[in-house]
Amino acid sequence: MRKFVLLCCLCFCTMHLFSLTLKSPDERLLLSVDVDNSGCPYYKLESTAGSLIAPSHLGYVLKRENPEKATDFEYRTFAKSETLEQKQDLFSGFEIINSQKSSFDETWKPVWGEESEIRNHYNELLVCFHQEKNDRQMNIRFRLFDDGLGFRYEFPDQKSFTYFVIKEEKTEFAMTDDHKAWWIAGDYDTQEYAYMTTRLSGIRGKMKDDITSNASQTPAGETCVQTSLMLKTDDGIYMNIHEAACIDYATMHLNYDEKTNTFISHLTPDACGDKGYMQTPCHSPWRTLIVGNSGADILASRITLNLNEPCKIEDTSWIHPTKYVGVWWKMIVGGAHWSYTDAVNSVKLNDKKLNGVLQSATDYSTAEPSGRHAANTENVKRHIDFAAEHGFDAVLVEGWNQGWEDWFGHQKDYVFDFVTPYPDFDVRAIHEYAAQRGVKMIMHHETSSSVRNYERRLDEAYQFMVDNGYPAVKSGYVGDIVPRGEHHYSQWLNNHYLYCIQKAAEYKIMVNAHEATRPTGICRTYPNWIGNESARGTEYEAFGGNTVDHTTILPFTRLIGGPMDYTPGIFEMDCSKIDPNNKSKVRSTLTRQLALYVTMYSPLQMAADLPENYERFPDAFKFIEDVPVDWQKSIYLEAEPGDYITIARKDKNSENWFVGSSVDENGHLSEIKLDFLTPGKKYDAIIYRDAKDASWDKNPQAYKIEKHTVTSKDKLKIKSASGGGFAISLMIHK
Amino acid sequence: MRKFVLLCCLCFCTMHLFSLTLKSPDERLLLSVDVDNSGCPYYKLESTAGSLIAPSHLGYVLKRENPEKATDFEYRTFAKSETLEQKQDLFSGFEIINSQKSSFDETWKPVWGEESEIRNHYNELLVCFHQEKNDRQMNIRFRLFDDGLGFRYEFPDQKSFTYFVIKEEKTEFAMTDDHKAWWIAGDYDTQEYAYMTTRLSGIRGKMKDDITSNASQTPAGETCVQTSLMLKTDDGIYMNIHEAACIDYATMHLNYDEKTNTFISHLTPDACGDKGYMQTPCHSPWRTLIVGNSGADILASRITLNLNEPCKIEDTSWIHPTKYVGVWWKMIVGGAHWSYTDAVNSVKLNDKKLNGVLQSATDYSTAEPSGRHAANTENVKRHIDFAAEHGFDAVLVEGWNQGWEDWFGHQKDYVFDFVTPYPDFDVRAIHEYAAQRGVKMIMHHETSSSVRNYERRLDEAYQFMVDNGYPAVKSGYVGDIVPRGEHHYSQWLNNHYLYCIQKAAEYKIMVNAHEATRPTGICRTYPNWIGNESARGTEYEAFGGNTVDHTTILPFTRLIGGPMDYTPGIFEMDCSKIDPNNKSKVRSTLTRQLALYVTMYSPLQMAADLPENYERFPDAFKFIEDVPVDWQKSIYLEAEPGDYITIARKDKNSENWFVGSSVDENGHLSEIKLDFLTPGKKYDAIIYRDAKDASWDKNPQAYKIEKHTVTSKDKLKIKSASGGGFAISLMIHK
Repeated sequence: MRKFVLLCCLCFCTMHLFSLTLKSPDERLLLSVDVDNSGCPYYKLESTAGSLIAPSHLGYVLKRENPEKATDFEYRTFAKSETLEQKQDLFSGFEIINSQKSSFDETWKPVWGEESEIRNHYNELLVCFHQEKNDRQMNIRFRLFDDGLGFRYEFPDQKSFTYFVIKEEKTEFAMTDDHKAWWIAGDYDTQEYAYMTTRLSGIRGKMKDDITSNASQTPAGETCVQTSLMLKTDDGIYMNIHEAACIDYATMHLNYDEKTNTFISHLTPDACGDKGYMQTPCHSPWRTLIVGNSGADILASRITLNLNEPCKIEDTSWIHPTKYVGVWWKMIVGGAHWSYTDAVNSVKLNDKKLNGVLQSATDYSTAEPSGRHAANTENVKRHIDFAAEHGFDAVLVEGWNQGWEDWFGHQKDYVFDFVTPYPDFDVRAIHEYAAQRGVKMIMHHETSSSVRNYERRLDEAYQFMVDNGYPAVKSGYVGDIVPRGEHHYSQWLNNHYLYCIQKAAEYKIMVNAHEATRPTGICRTYPNWIGNESARGTEYEAFGGNTVDHTTILPFTRLIGGPMDYTPGIFEMDCSKIDPNNKSKVRSTLTRQLALYVTMYSPLQMAADLPENYERFPDAFKFIEDVPVDWQKSIYLEAEPGDYITIARKDKNSENWFVGSSVDENGHLSEIKLDFLTPGKKYDAIIYRDAKDASWDKNPQAYKIEKHTVTSKDKLKIKSASGGGFAISLMIHK
Repeated sequence: MRKFVLLCCLCFCTMHLFSLTLKSPDERLLLSVDVDNSGCPYYKLESTAGSLIAPSHLGYVLKRENPEKATDFEYRTFAKSETLEQKQDLFSGFEIINSQKSSFDETWKPVWGEESEIRNHYNELLVCFHQEKNDRQMNIRFRLFDDGLGFRYEFPDQKSFTYFVIKEEKTEFAMTDDHKAWWIAGDYDTQEYAYMTTRLSGIRGKMKDDITSNASQTPAGETCVQTSLMLKTDDGIYMNIHEAACIDYATMHLNYDEKTNTFISHLTPDACGDKGYMQTPCHSPWRTLIVGNSGADILASRITLNLNEPCKIEDTSWIHPTKYVGVWWKMIVGGAHWSYTDAVNSVKLNDKKLNGVLQSATDYSTAEPSGRHAANTENVKRHIDFAAEHGFDAVLVEGWNQGWEDWFGHQKDYVFDFVTPYPDFDVRAIHEYAAQRGVKMIMHHETSSSVRNYERRLDEAYQFMVDNGYPAVKSGYVGDIVPRGEHHYSQWLNNHYLYCIQKAAEYKIMVNAHEATRPTGICRTYPNWIGNESARGTEYEAFGGNTVDHTTILPFTRLIGGPMDYTPGIFEMDCSKIDPNNKSKVRSTLTRQLALYVTMYSPLQMAADLPENYERFPDAFKFIEDVPVDWQKSIYLEAEPGDYITIARKDKNSENWFVGSSVDENGHLSEIKLDFLTPGKKYDAIIYRDAKDASWDKNPQAYKIEKHTVTSKDKLKIKSASGGGFAISLMIHK
């Protein structure tokens, strides 16, 4: 691997060809912007070591021009916009009419995060383009940080350009070589694919392998991948392409054009194939490129958060990072059911609002229980006891509400009501029991992707939560979207997810949305958006298994946008112990499961395994009990996508540190300097490491726990097994 | 015209070919049902005079079979329904496994209506079909009344058939000859076409002429027409095809197959082209055929209401038939604006819930008013005064709320909030002023067809109405539907309209929905659904003019499903008097405008013209002041579609009668026996009739008012002008 040579005084060779340039605050990155011969805006990005993004076009194809302004008279005569000339071009004939440079440097404090203070430092270039033939103005705002670039399209208020429909955004990221890439298939409805590691030229060949069956899926193209996309050059430069603040806009994919070695933006369409309804003044999300000399640089970047708006919630006192257990894993593996009965063929829920629609409502009070319903009062109380005894904040319960007998695969419109429990789930008794034991409940709203039904019931559902002691909700979007034809990541749905977040904030409710759009840092603005799934989580370990290197890639991809509710902490790797029919093996050693509480940053962390499995390994479980979920500082000790990640984090509320390391199937020897510890202080270290004979496939539960007293001068050398890892707690010595 | 011969003992010639038959209570209609050689259900309908509906098939084409029941395990493994064999056939292989006959006879009292008591009397035949190859059960329930037939498909709860998607319903109505028909073009998004009068063989030729431009339109096919479809045979039999109780199902059109001389049902698709998502147990709406010997028989039929469920609202004390004036016609004609300002290019409304979406909100407080905004406090108070002085119940005001500057044609998602008035509309002051004068306000909710936005704001909007003295709302659905790709009459939208009605009932709000699906008698079940537009209303008189015979056809077509808010009462026919640019002429004489309050039944009647126009004709205006909006009894004195309609109605709350007559461009001489009056009583008759030289095009305001004292033994002979008509009030002589 060649080094990223720092030559601050380097003369950028093509600088003179571009009208406008901008340097990063440390002057190591250089952005150039201009219009080409056809009047198409373009840009390139260089570092002092060479080109990062080759000249790349910017613009849009529109479905139609803004229809002439509708007046009262048009209402009367119904003059139709279709009679107007369709001017679709937003990529040629532009000239630069103005530009502004500015600088920004501030340090802000997130409500929760990987660190308690974040510096937002960039130089900005606003370029104003004018398209004379249509008299349209389009600005592009570039922000160049030391660790990368963000830019977005802005459409100011203007007389001749008010409403437009995006046929496609045409933002290019021209590659300079056949880089190595970590990617998943572009898809409008699922992000739950396994990561592929190929050269760019290998994307097409591996696409079909990547597209495995899912509950809802619409692959986006033969060379189309999702963001965030992790890249590495042969020169050892690490790059990451994603987006920030995707609000009222469709989620972006990247279509790889092999002929030009260029990624081109590809937005998620609506039911009509349109990609965005826009009204000036408005802007796109930020398109981001993080650049670094190491994997650690990528993980340390705060570009995604910095490009989002500051917190819009004034009182955030009710937002708490949360560690929880739940009635969940046993159902995922197959040892219990979400549903209450096998005796009901077709569920129709009663509803005073819709009593005209229904012939009859399902009567659960007379239906024979299957005996395998997990969300029963007794079992929930057992989990509350376990949470209280081991210091967990909360208990999640799935399958508590009526409708699980036929919720999936039918695109049912009225599928759940979110307020009616099964007969064996006593909401009041559970509420009181949890309150007595100092444990909060986490609500579960599986929408079955029927979003109209969910929005209609949202106020009532949130009020029900407030009334019954549920300060947080896990929402789910499994299956094809209703309204039918819409996609999980379209403008319409992205608008829906944020609507729920905003409404939840009114009720002081935290939201953890599963199967929703991958995050783009909006949690800075709405920190009650405390979690997302949006990738293959631990559940896939019970659906055949995740790839062994999965957790060494996720922090470079899915987590670039925000935290993931990965639900780690599985101690029993053999799923057949729970359901004899389930032959899946969790592809991880036990200590790597501990490490994930550190390496997979989230303010919401589950201990996903069954209480009885934790009770079998109380010494290892101690790490999960000890590890915090909010941090003062994070140090990325070593990180190579697909190989290993080792991170040290300092508790937000104490001087204690925690280290985690997750490694791939090849194992890894970590050599760690503890120089991040406060000099002069002593720490009690507990090291949870793989035993010598451990491996994910043969001996995953073989671990060793060591205790030492250490200082900042110490170094540790720890060997992780295949699919293994380690965890360390470093508590101030008293 | 040959007479409908009554031969009660006639031996129906093809009776022996069908397994099952059913006679109407009076034995004049005979229904026959069987399966054909391929196992397709079919039926025919005969009267004692001959065949009405020739043998016609019944069934469905499905998009796919019900996917195998999704279990928890399938959730885990994501087994896909697509792997299943797609069995699409619901029209062959059936056998009749059971049938049941029954009779029903009751008299019920509508909350409001054309009469205070309605008899519901029919013989019923339930036929149970079984499709062995797919083990599916489908029942068809036939109800045969003296005046026609209703039938619907029913799908009982069954193990092997739970969820299915309708590709098309294939209900046939086979014609026996090339009948005369009154029709408008089938369209998924508008019902606002002018009626065509052709033979069946002439439908194709006139289709293009009928499809005039509209704010949202998706024509359904070259020979596809809407229901209700009015037909007349050369034998003088009148028939009408429509549907009843269209709930959670797409609206039906009729596709005319010229080769077989048969109408085939054609449902409104969703954004994916699917026509219905069904879950057993469930059923279709009723398909109805009204039959009579005269046009009057068709108008007198109560089949549509009788096939709907009884009222589901327990306390109906808050539902009041309403006569109203409004701030409306001047804007329709072009003399005033809904919008407040010309200075705003692009409206973005503020919203605490969506403050993340918006860059900035439109500030109306600083925008220069256009000076043409009609919904200002002063003008509204003037209308309140007028309403109070002339005994109207309520005042409608359109254009009161922010957003009208760019509401139309852009498919804006967040287009209105329904609670924020323009600066010159003082909600509290108007509320207090109206309350003092004993006048109610009618709210206006133009949704711009953005139904997600409307549903999100519905609770707040209805609460705002309750808080500000608005017991009724006129809702509007102008423009293409958002969610984009959906249609005005799809299952999704039909579900939406009813959702609004049901939610409105919770707030004790009456709803008058414009541009919504044509009614199918659901107002029996939800009598707060007090009005609908769903056809070309009076507003088209200002958009170039309705055809002269329009109001002689509407009662045979649009009104078969329920009342229409036609907004009659225009006294100034020359639109240029309001807006010099508007060259439209109202195609009616003044007295015909009076007649419409009787001939166009509605519990909601507007006096649509400007107060100053009424003040010019106080003698004629007296009829509008006097005419009630709720009835004890209705007598259809003479009625020929496209030619003339004369109806007498008795006030629900007195012994007074009112007569109206509307005639086409040929004029008409009416000879009326007053034998409907109570014998022995004297009545003061005021006759409002066309002057001798009156005509809609030359002299529309020429009328004559005559006063007589009459009894049940009297006869009246009244000549109506071209496009004319008359109105009579018959008050008990004191």
